[in-house]
Amino acid sequence: MQTLVQFISIEAIPPSLGDNTGDIDRLKKALQSNFAGRELVVPYARMAEVAGRFRQADFSGCAVICDMPGRFEIVDFLAQTPAVLPAMALDLGTTHLEASLINLLDGSILARGNRENAQISYGADILSRIHFAAGHEGLDKLHQEIINCINKLAAQLAGKAGLATEEIRALSVSGNTTMIHFFLRLDPYHLCREPYIPLVNDPDPCRAGDLGLNLHEEGVVWVMPSVGSYFGGDLISGILSSGLDQSEDTCMLIDVGTNAEVVLGNREWLIACAGAAGPALEGGVAKMGMRAGPGAIEHVKIDPDSGRIDFQTIDNSAPRGICGSGIIDLVAAFYLARIIDIRGKFRGVGYEDRFIETDEGLAFIVAHGHESANGEPVVIGQVDLDAMMRSKAAMYSILTTITNQVGLEFADLKRIYVAGAFGRHIDPRQAITLGMLPDLPLDTFEPIGNSSLAGAEQVLLERADRERCREMIRRITYLELNVNQEFMLRFSGSRFIPHTDHTLFPSVPFFND
Amino acid sequence: MQTLVQFISIEAIPPSLGDNTGDIDRLKKALQSNFAGRELVVPYARMAEVAGRFRQADFSGCAVICDMPGRFEIVDFLAQTPAVLPAMALDLGTTHLEASLINLLDGSILARGNRENAQISYGADILSRIHFAAGHEGLDKLHQEIINCINKLAAQLAGKAGLATEEIRALSVSGNTTMIHFFLRLDPYHLCREPYIPLVNDPDPCRAGDLGLNLHEEGVVWVMPSVGSYFGGDLISGILSSGLDQSEDTCMLIDVGTNAEVVLGNREWLIACAGAAGPALEGGVAKMGMRAGPGAIEHVKIDPDSGRIDFQTIDNSAPRGICGSGIIDLVAAFYLARIIDIRGKFRGVGYEDRFIETDEGLAFIVAHGHESANGEPVVIGQVDLDAMMRSKAAMYSILTTITNQVGLEFADLKRIYVAGAFGRHIDPRQAITLGMLPDLPLDTFEPIGNSSLAGAEQVLLERADRERCREMIRRITYLELNVNQEFMLRFSGSRFIPHTDHTLFPSVPFFND
Repeated sequence: MQTLVQFISIEAIPPSLGDNTGDIDRLKKALQSNFAGRELVVPYARMAEVAGRFRQADFSGCAVICDMPGRFEIVDFLAQTPAVLPAMALDLGTTHLEASLINLLDGSILARGNRENAQISYGADILSRIHFAAGHEGLDKLHQEIINCINKLAAQLAGKAGLATEEIRALSVSGNTTMIHFFLRLDPYHLCREPYIPLVNDPDPCRAGDLGLNLHEEGVVWVMPSVGSYFGGDLISGILSSGLDQSEDTCMLIDVGTNAEVVLGNREWLIACAGAAGPALEGGVAKMGMRAGPGAIEHVKIDPDSGRIDFQTIDNSAPRGICGSGIIDLVAAFYLARIIDIRGKFRGVGYEDRFIETDEGLAFIVAHGHESANGEPVVIGQVDLDAMMRSKAAMYSILTTITNQVGLEFADLKRIYVAGAFGRHIDPRQAITLGMLPDLPLDTFEPIGNSSLAGAEQVLLERADRERCREMIRRITYLELNVNQEFMLRFSGSRFIPHTDHTLFPSVPFFND
Repeated sequence: MQTLVQFISIEAIPPSLGDNTGDIDRLKKALQSNFAGRELVVPYARMAEVAGRFRQADFSGCAVICDMPGRFEIVDFLAQTPAVLPAMALDLGTTHLEASLINLLDGSILARGNRENAQISYGADILSRIHFAAGHEGLDKLHQEIINCINKLAAQLAGKAGLATEEIRALSVSGNTTMIHFFLRLDPYHLCREPYIPLVNDPDPCRAGDLGLNLHEEGVVWVMPSVGSYFGGDLISGILSSGLDQSEDTCMLIDVGTNAEVVLGNREWLIACAGAAGPALEGGVAKMGMRAGPGAIEHVKIDPDSGRIDFQTIDNSAPRGICGSGIIDLVAAFYLARIIDIRGKFRGVGYEDRFIETDEGLAFIVAHGHESANGEPVVIGQVDLDAMMRSKAAMYSILTTITNQVGLEFADLKRIYVAGAFGRHIDPRQAITLGMLPDLPLDTFEPIGNSSLAGAEQVLLERADRERCREMIRRITYLELNVNQEFMLRFSGSRFIPHTDHTLFPSVPFFND
């Protein structure tokens, strides 16, 4: 285990007339055997303090060492070796931040926490924030907002663990490429303009003090590298934590947010792509869409015979809306109950008491006003269904395009890892019914939770994993879907339930009208 | 030739939809072949600017690369490759600074200059400055004073070369260990206290901006490493520029200031020592002592038969005082003319018109008032002679002790390099007569000028030489004379002209009284 920051206990031989090695040189000499073959450096800004503390501690105690590119840096010296070496792992999401505080001495989790991304006040989505950044001091504001937000999250975690934020000696950050640009205060201008080039994909580590983070000033900030503007470090984290890059069998990783990001590969090769899946899968559609949270309808069943509708909400609270997995369940159930046709349109047959007219056209009442949290019915309209159909079509087209690109078929995939909230809440059976996920045995699909955070935790603990990430971005072939003709063709066929070619979905009932 | 800072011209392939490498990653990739096997890093503070300039220059131009421990750092990008890459080499002396401005593109000298060390107002010698540093903000003042002084010298050199100081992209500094501590703002407290331990002997390079130097903010500051408190980087420079550490034959290097620093060795081994030689050899004794400069008596002859005294001054100006080499000449002439005895005491025989009584006892008039620059006679007193005798005894004892330490005799030395002003002005014949230098063929002695500056120039130009210096300080065995019994014993025998054992000086006439 070679953690990003280490404590090394040493007992140096004190100076004497026969040994006039300088204090800093003495410290390096005592540490040398631990770092054979690599440079050991004391940064100028730390030299006077490190030397003073080393001498004050009578030349024995605990050196604090950071693993930096090409060398190890000695940044501190403590008389006693502390019992914890706290480091923070951060999943820096567009809407939410999720973090854990880890003791690098043993890998144990000291605290976990999350927080809304305060940048939302400057733009709900990435694109509007990129535009905001271009305006007067916009980048500064977005940068400062995210730093403040991380500082608050750090304070929250440190508080839970009974520590001061200044004791946190490292931070690993996993996020999409735009969020990383905001975090590092780098101009995101070219990220959303053809040919979509990041200012940097693999930034060298910096210091917490460089960014105004309220951690230990010399805390190392390690950023998970990205592959491109639309393929961020969060997905590299996913590959790392799923082990896709070391797998003997070919597997797939799916991470769905506003974009669907997909990686296919094994220990020999890796291919990746990303495409706009639309906000439907995040629960970002319609009036009633909501993120997975208390009161969100996450599962729905419709009995085609009795017409009875059963739903399940998160925390079993009164329903407030429908989250992504709930919408998938619902649309699949609509299809099986023949409420919608293969194009995803309301057939207008039966369930008359459930339909209402809204400003946006026909809508279906999932939960009546008397059942809901606020007395208003929870409804889903035709516009929502249309958005969902586009999303599911995009998703399936992406999966087919990337698999075909390498001459494989879905049946060749040993496992499909599904990351994030989407992976946690989705029922693969319903997604297959919709024709969103391929018709494979259900145990092929494996939810892996917040793999962006899991990867960030791993790199704090293991040098080999940090190297794996940098190696990975060199190995990944990135397929740009925006210019991919095959993707566009496949998209059309995928806009039906389950698909125009229903031999692709033998497990799904097919209706002719 | 691998200079400390380099310009590398590149033409990167511009980004396209098929190549979404980030700007910084693209720059690194284009440079990689030049730096195989070592990390190439863009420091956080430079990332945004380097990326911006690279893009603005349409991805081709000139990268500015610094050779730093364990890695190369890309600190700038220029659209056009400039015709000069100016770097400053500095000999940071206790009393004087001497510098040159070098074009790292071809090694040519752009300008030379020197300046008095402005710290003198806080203490003429090292020890009084160390004590001053311990007082209220003393270290800050001394540090600031030397930085200001270097800034002025840099402006002077840049002006001569028609450049701005901000164009200077590197600085190499060679100086004694205390001056380096002041320069780096490091506490010199333990330098003069047993067991005489520097805070650092081999500091890692830093940035001009870290120290408040008015060079290019990212200019690399490379400090010549030292061996101990009394054996500084100036002498490592001397070894480097004389080539002692690569010599097949065993040679000696002597550098005389307030301390006499001596290195003995060859490409197999190196041994060094330093001892207080007293200020006599720097011209720092007595009322009439002065540094080598216009009006300083540098050579003296006395005809024992006629009693006639001939002297020669620097620049042939009217005499103002006597410099170190003048005093050596004078004392040797006194001995040969039998004006002093073997103990260096005035014999009180003859030359009656030349003697006067002063507050400090008997003195000898070297130049009469009517000959001198200010109408006052230039005199040398018994106290001056006594100081000179101690100095020469110390010098010879140091040379004998170190040579004996390795089981050699003076005759085994192929060459004795004599550094600095002492080497430039001294007449080895007279120094042998005094018993200060060993009685060897005169062509054994080779003056090598300001080898501290010469070494500083070399390290700017050659990576191999930078590595040689760091290798050297590991190879050198340092002999601490302050606790050396043999040295103390030898000192007594050396307090006579030429020595109690006159078989050691066959070329010098011996008088019995």
